[in-house]
Amino acid sequence: MTGLLKSKVEAIAAAKFPFAKALDRVAQSPLRDVLDRTHRPGVISLALGMPAGEMFPTEDFAKATARVLECPLATQYGEPHRPLKEHIVRLMERRGVQCSEEEVFLTAGAQQGLSLISQLLLDPKATVITEDTIYDGLQMVLQACDARVLEVSTCLDTGMDVDAVEKLLHRGVAPRFIYTITDGHNPLGVSMTPANRQRLVELARRYRVPILEDDAYGFLYYDQDTEAPPPLRALDDQWVFYLGSFSKILAPALRLGWVVVPRELTSSLKELTTKLSVLKQAADFDTATLTQRSVASYLDGSDFSKHLEEICGEYRRRRDAMVAALQRHFPSEVRWNRPANGLFLWLEFPPDTVNVDRLFERALEREKVAFLPGGAFSLNPNASRSRHCVRLSFGNSDVETIEEGVARLGRVLKAELVGSAIGRPGPRALARGHRAV
Amino acid sequence: MTGLLKSKVEAIAAAKFPFAKALDRVAQSPLRDVLDRTHRPGVISLALGMPAGEMFPTEDFAKATARVLECPLATQYGEPHRPLKEHIVRLMERRGVQCSEEEVFLTAGAQQGLSLISQLLLDPKATVITEDTIYDGLQMVLQACDARVLEVSTCLDTGMDVDAVEKLLHRGVAPRFIYTITDGHNPLGVSMTPANRQRLVELARRYRVPILEDDAYGFLYYDQDTEAPPPLRALDDQWVFYLGSFSKILAPALRLGWVVVPRELTSSLKELTTKLSVLKQAADFDTATLTQRSVASYLDGSDFSKHLEEICGEYRRRRDAMVAALQRHFPSEVRWNRPANGLFLWLEFPPDTVNVDRLFERALEREKVAFLPGGAFSLNPNASRSRHCVRLSFGNSDVETIEEGVARLGRVLKAELVGSAIGRPGPRALARGHRAV
Repeated sequence: MTGLLKSKVEAIAAAKFPFAKALDRVAQSPLRDVLDRTHRPGVISLALGMPAGEMFPTEDFAKATARVLECPLATQYGEPHRPLKEHIVRLMERRGVQCSEEEVFLTAGAQQGLSLISQLLLDPKATVITEDTIYDGLQMVLQACDARVLEVSTCLDTGMDVDAVEKLLHRGVAPRFIYTITDGHNPLGVSMTPANRQRLVELARRYRVPILEDDAYGFLYYDQDTEAPPPLRALDDQWVFYLGSFSKILAPALRLGWVVVPRELTSSLKELTTKLSVLKQAADFDTATLTQRSVASYLDGSDFSKHLEEICGEYRRRRDAMVAALQRHFPSEVRWNRPANGLFLWLEFPPDTVNVDRLFERALEREKVAFLPGGAFSLNPNASRSRHCVRLSFGNSDVETIEEGVARLGRVLKAELVGSAIGRPGPRALARGHRAV
Repeated sequence: MTGLLKSKVEAIAAAKFPFAKALDRVAQSPLRDVLDRTHRPGVISLALGMPAGEMFPTEDFAKATARVLECPLATQYGEPHRPLKEHIVRLMERRGVQCSEEEVFLTAGAQQGLSLISQLLLDPKATVITEDTIYDGLQMVLQACDARVLEVSTCLDTGMDVDAVEKLLHRGVAPRFIYTITDGHNPLGVSMTPANRQRLVELARRYRVPILEDDAYGFLYYDQDTEAPPPLRALDDQWVFYLGSFSKILAPALRLGWVVVPRELTSSLKELTTKLSVLKQAADFDTATLTQRSVASYLDGSDFSKHLEEICGEYRRRRDAMVAALQRHFPSEVRWNRPANGLFLWLEFPPDTVNVDRLFERALEREKVAFLPGGAFSLNPNASRSRHCVRLSFGNSDVETIEEGVARLGRVLKAELVGSAIGRPGPRALARGHRAV
């Protein structure tokens, strides 16, 4: 082999094998490695959106699994399990949604619902409207689908900026869907006002745009005086895809969720569910039969209302403990909300006072406490919200741990703020917290 | 509203909401509805690729589930469970494959592995080489990825036509991958010869084309005199993605599989697994933690070699029963093979003697017995093999049921053949069966 040929062959051999071009921009969140460090012993993690695992009905579920295993069909491939769909129809009634088993499509968690509906609706380069600070699982799907994203902001009191959505639609933008988390927003903790819900579904109807409503947290509702407002799917059954999940009301380890599809988006519900079924079969053939049957059997034999009441009661106590601890340990210039749903609380530091990425590192090193910097949820890494905000989760720590974790975080914060204008004694800011705390 | 405007508005309202264009060609297999009919009482189904559910170690698995539920981590989101990966590394050793935990990527069944690797490697309109008669789950993935498929044929004695693959590559075709089922081919039942395996991986190396080796059936090996030939991944660790599955060796209802990724396809294994992880997170976040831990715990506490021996022994008996029944009940002009692996047996009728779609209907109506017409596995519905061939599965029926099902099928066939040239008494065809039966 001549020298030239040899070096050419070596150059070819050294060249990377190409991945799909759509993946060029796809990279693992840098937080992933960092999060591994939060699993060390002694670290209090307020970082992840994990529910209270200790509230899982272990014994009843193990019994349900043993029970369904007596039927040989429980180990096979299978059609979606109708008794589970019937349970889901009844669960949806609690959320004020009337639907039939035919509109319920089973998925491996809400994330798969999001992925399948995106594949159903998005051509490459298609436009989607969503919020600028939003669940990072959406970002991964939109990147993989090569979608073009238009962002609107979110008010911490009223939810998605529906005025901004209307402006975009009025300007002639024709998105293939609008994605939002109506209740217990991840990461912002806000629930959309009833008026905004009504306006958003009216926009969907007027401009003929489907909405993907991610309701992973809707069943976790903490206000005892007022009833939970109904989700978008209760206000419109023609344009709303509702994404539901057992992850937060039972356990994420099950990977079990569902979509309530719109009744009349296309001329035929059958056409829609058939396309979805083919996408689902391509993705993973079917949703684990054993899990479907175990959950259905558990729901048959248990008082699920009582379970929901118990977990909501516990999360309410944790939320209240976190808010109280923040009041005790944090400077008055820091703002936070008091979520009515979900697992998350959103903190805003005054701009240019705290570098939250550095705060994360210091908190982990010096005080062994973890949270998530706001940038993890930002479609645009330069967005200002991503630099001076953090998400705290109260889902997976008991009241004492939350108190201790917030106290540690308060100490790190105070050390970081030395020399800054905030955190000094002075008149107390009026607008402490977005809701009365 | 004027009449014109009104009718325009109504026309818009009546228009279907558009699905992604890539789904235009995607439709549910017409067989799906038909298959529902095979679930009726009294029907003997030799149609589906379901394993022997009654061989599932029900009690041990229920105990394993109860055991792992004692650990709160078993209910949460989680990193891929390392002890399960360690078990898989040892399983792969049985197949002659040396790999490390870092090369094992957990999936919700082999189907998800196929879907994720396709997303990893395929741009829209990218070319793929595969066989013209092949697992229909591949077809769904390739349609969803909008891939261009080049087909080669498969010899029922030696497997994929490697000469044809070489011709395509030599001509300058640059596929993004070659897909094949090396052992216990679905639907053809054939296992590739050792010489063809060697040639195929050499082609992959020479032309720098990854291979997707679907090994859902490789562990089910029935020859007692010779050792199972190693899969492609044992012959090459740079270009072969190996798709593994617990569906056939434990239960499909678990939705648990794995990919053994190539060690050096790109400059870094880390880059490859990171991209795959992001695609996996987008698809369904993670593989059910509870299932991962239950299977790992079951494997810890059980004699899996014994389980494999038992299921292989039972499938061997079922295969032999099916071959013997075919010899008894079928005309000598019908050809079939005697698979060394897997769950399927492929029947070829002489061309233009039997309409297999009509045979399917008659068999179900008159004799309550079901099989799958060859067309279900054909990328090209006009391919001749799809019209005069059928797949029989011996996986999910006991020996007596197989005998009875084949006898029923023989009766329907004989009724269909009245007036045809075949099935009449005469000199016995020499080439009965592709292997000595």
